[in-house]
Amino acid sequence: MEIFEVHILGCGSALPTTRHNASSQVVRIGNKQFMIDCGEGTQLQLRRSHIHFSFINHIFISHLHGDHCFGLIGMISTFGLLGRTAPLHIYADKMLRKLMKEQLDFFCKELKYQVIFHDIDATKHQVIYEDNTITVHTIPQKHRIPCCGFLFTEKPKKRHIRRDMIDAYNIPEYKRRGIKEGEDYITPEGETIPNARLTTDADPSRSYAYCSDTLPCPENCPLIAGADLLYHEATFATSEATRAQATFHSTAAQAAHIAAEAGVKKLVIGHFSSRYDDESTLLAEAQEIFPNSHIADEGKVFHV
Amino acid sequence: MEIFEVHILGCGSALPTTRHNASSQVVRIGNKQFMIDCGEGTQLQLRRSHIHFSFINHIFISHLHGDHCFGLIGMISTFGLLGRTAPLHIYADKMLRKLMKEQLDFFCKELKYQVIFHDIDATKHQVIYEDNTITVHTIPQKHRIPCCGFLFTEKPKKRHIRRDMIDAYNIPEYKRRGIKEGEDYITPEGETIPNARLTTDADPSRSYAYCSDTLPCPENCPLIAGADLLYHEATFATSEATRAQATFHSTAAQAAHIAAEAGVKKLVIGHFSSRYDDESTLLAEAQEIFPNSHIADEGKVFHV
Repeated sequence: MEIFEVHILGCGSALPTTRHNASSQVVRIGNKQFMIDCGEGTQLQLRRSHIHFSFINHIFISHLHGDHCFGLIGMISTFGLLGRTAPLHIYADKMLRKLMKEQLDFFCKELKYQVIFHDIDATKHQVIYEDNTITVHTIPQKHRIPCCGFLFTEKPKKRHIRRDMIDAYNIPEYKRRGIKEGEDYITPEGETIPNARLTTDADPSRSYAYCSDTLPCPENCPLIAGADLLYHEATFATSEATRAQATFHSTAAQAAHIAAEAGVKKLVIGHFSSRYDDESTLLAEAQEIFPNSHIADEGKVFHV
Repeated sequence: MEIFEVHILGCGSALPTTRHNASSQVVRIGNKQFMIDCGEGTQLQLRRSHIHFSFINHIFISHLHGDHCFGLIGMISTFGLLGRTAPLHIYADKMLRKLMKEQLDFFCKELKYQVIFHDIDATKHQVIYEDNTITVHTIPQKHRIPCCGFLFTEKPKKRHIRRDMIDAYNIPEYKRRGIKEGEDYITPEGETIPNARLTTDADPSRSYAYCSDTLPCPENCPLIAGADLLYHEATFATSEATRAQATFHSTAAQAAHIAAEAGVKKLVIGHFSSRYDDESTLLAEAQEIFPNSHIADEGKVFHV
């Protein structure tokens, strides 16, 4: 199956620490790379993770708090210095376009590529990106300012055509595409070979959901139901549940409850408060509710 | 003598690498800390160097290229989250005030402290900061955009009053200040004790010059003559002299020539191009001309 993985570049929260960078990750699907959030220092984390700068063409910004977007201007500037010519698409709240315009005009006058802003309505669950294999939906979140998560879903895939059947029936090249899409094959002699005999099932379509920053949103569970991987913010431990509520964040246990209710296959928690010297308590609290829970860390790669 | 030292937070150039951060340093003089330049990631470097965020009240920005100022917004935001109430003074080209206003209004609405911008005219050599012990002058530089260096100079210090003379003449407390400033002492019996007998020489007034980014400016040598420490950009080796000229930067050898001509005591070179995997060539080229040359590195502290 094609690569589908999530590279964690930063999984800290508002206050950066020497352990965790501000939020950013790269979702790699086949030869495409999508960035989610871009806190300060993201370009350096990109370098550290050996991800090719030039393969990043789409950046999704969940919300306009600094720890999710202050790294954009430096990265855009660096892309320019490295000779980029391909357009860069940024999906974000409409204010970002306005906030960045003056900076881009001043600091990035000599850019040889276009920065194209796509406005997101964070209150809606809708498709904001689509290509021949992938769809990206917004997931409305509950935070202090407009905020959304992102759901990456592979489109239905084609069935696998059996090599031995191609040989047995000598199926011509131009017929194979239709067979992969489910058609039967009619031999030159007029015999119909049913598709089920010619093909094996398509690979399942995988999905990845990113939820940060937010109060727990059980109403979103149907949207992310059965996801192969869910990244959910878990800023606090249960002992700080009151603070989590007040600042519109989630605890690790709340993240795990969402994972369980949505029936996802695997949970990764992140967006850790700077107060924790390690996240073992958060992990334990999540695993108690949802055993297949994991903690994010800079440099970690999770397979979807 | 009072502490006077320079903490290197970043000494890379426009393209950040895993070896060098964007430009920033903290000049510590006694209990005061001044920041020079603030590239992306500076707040994290501050944490790494264990410098107290709250002691930084004055930031000097040499010029408005991103690698010298993109870290400001994140650091200002973090200072706010940490509960800062003391005003923060930023000395920079007047455009910075304009560029940051919209960002501050949007991202830092809840700041409990003032950010006060002081406009710099980078074409002039003049005092831009002064307190009871320190003066900071601008040093005009030659770069692609308005750019200046900074000269930190201790004001003349008071003479040391000799403990044994205080005892011998039983000099009252209220007379000592005048004696430290050079006055003679007249005993209750009317005898004049000359100051030279009562005191030893004051500590010398030290100075630190920061020159980045710039073509070599021999005309500035009189301004920085005899400085105890000179930090001079050395983006390139001599083999890239043409490129240095074209981009308004200096080579290590040119930096060393400036150090020699100005008769400074020690040279530190920095602002290294990302093309160098180590700076041994740059150091060797500088030391050939000015033996007391050193290379900057993140975390290094140089005593003035």
